[in-house]
Amino acid sequence: MKHTISVLVENKFGVLARISGLFSARGFNIDSLTVGETEDKSVSRMTIIVNAKDERILEQVKKQLNKLIDVITVIDLTKKDFIERELVLVKVSLSKMNKVKLEALLKKYSANIIKGNSKLAVVEACGEEQHLERLLTELKEFGYEELTRTGVIAINTE
Amino acid sequence: MKHTISVLVENKFGVLARISGLFSARGFNIDSLTVGETEDKSVSRMTIIVNAKDERILEQVKKQLNKLIDVITVIDLTKKDFIERELVLVKVSLSKMNKVKLEALLKKYSANIIKGNSKLAVVEACGEEQHLERLLTELKEFGYEELTRTGVIAINTE
Repeated sequence: MKHTISVLVENKFGVLARISGLFSARGFNIDSLTVGETEDKSVSRMTIIVNAKDERILEQVKKQLNKLIDVITVIDLTKKDFIERELVLVKVSLSKMNKVKLEALLKKYSANIIKGNSKLAVVEACGEEQHLERLLTELKEFGYEELTRTGVIAINTE
Repeated sequence: MKHTISVLVENKFGVLARISGLFSARGFNIDSLTVGETEDKSVSRMTIIVNAKDERILEQVKKQLNKLIDVITVIDLTKKDFIERELVLVKVSLSKMNKVKLEALLKKYSANIIKGNSKLAVVEACGEEQHLERLLTELKEFGYEELTRTGVIAINTE
């Protein structure tokens, strides 16, 4: 089962290595991980998406996370009300042939061209995972050259 | 000096722990790190922002990254043309008093309310770091309750 775990940590040297090491030592492959500062610059929030085959082992990992000195809180959002979002940048091949079509497609997904010339466009899009997957599938016919994704962030809405 | 490093890696078990460990072993604190899948699901792209006090040590770290078996390419975008973007979600306190003001502010920054009720609004915004910093400064007067950031992603535009 896919879990979305939000971890508040002290923004200190080595904390990322310790946390990602904790997951890999238990055999978890992290699907997505983001780290960003919060309203307090000394504190960062990590959002970790893992697919847990064994829920008991994930419970152990969460307990170990809680014991780490630089970890402030660990929240598994999976069973709560929360919103997930991700940002992607895509470099799309462009020709006069398909520019109109591309613009129509982007409008449908509330996505924007943030930089472009006659040959290339850099597209910015954000949304839920499924929204972005659908956009990326449709973009494939334009032959996109490069894709960069932030990974998922989540916020508790309870 | 702030460096934006884009690392293409095999999407394998433990690669994140090894890479973040490499930076922490050399005394680098990572300002921001994102990992997301690329067009090829077996390959992920990491965007790492570090502030290098000693450029020579950063060069060594980049060489060591290149030697890791799961690392495909390491590109330091810092001296190239590139676009950086980040996504933030902010939970803002809301009352009838300030809803109009909040909407005007969000319009100025092309930000949206993606979920809300009479007391709270979840704001989604993306853009360059400075753009987001200005928005967050202005949002502070609404007394925001929670902030989640993806960290920065970057795409080469050369």
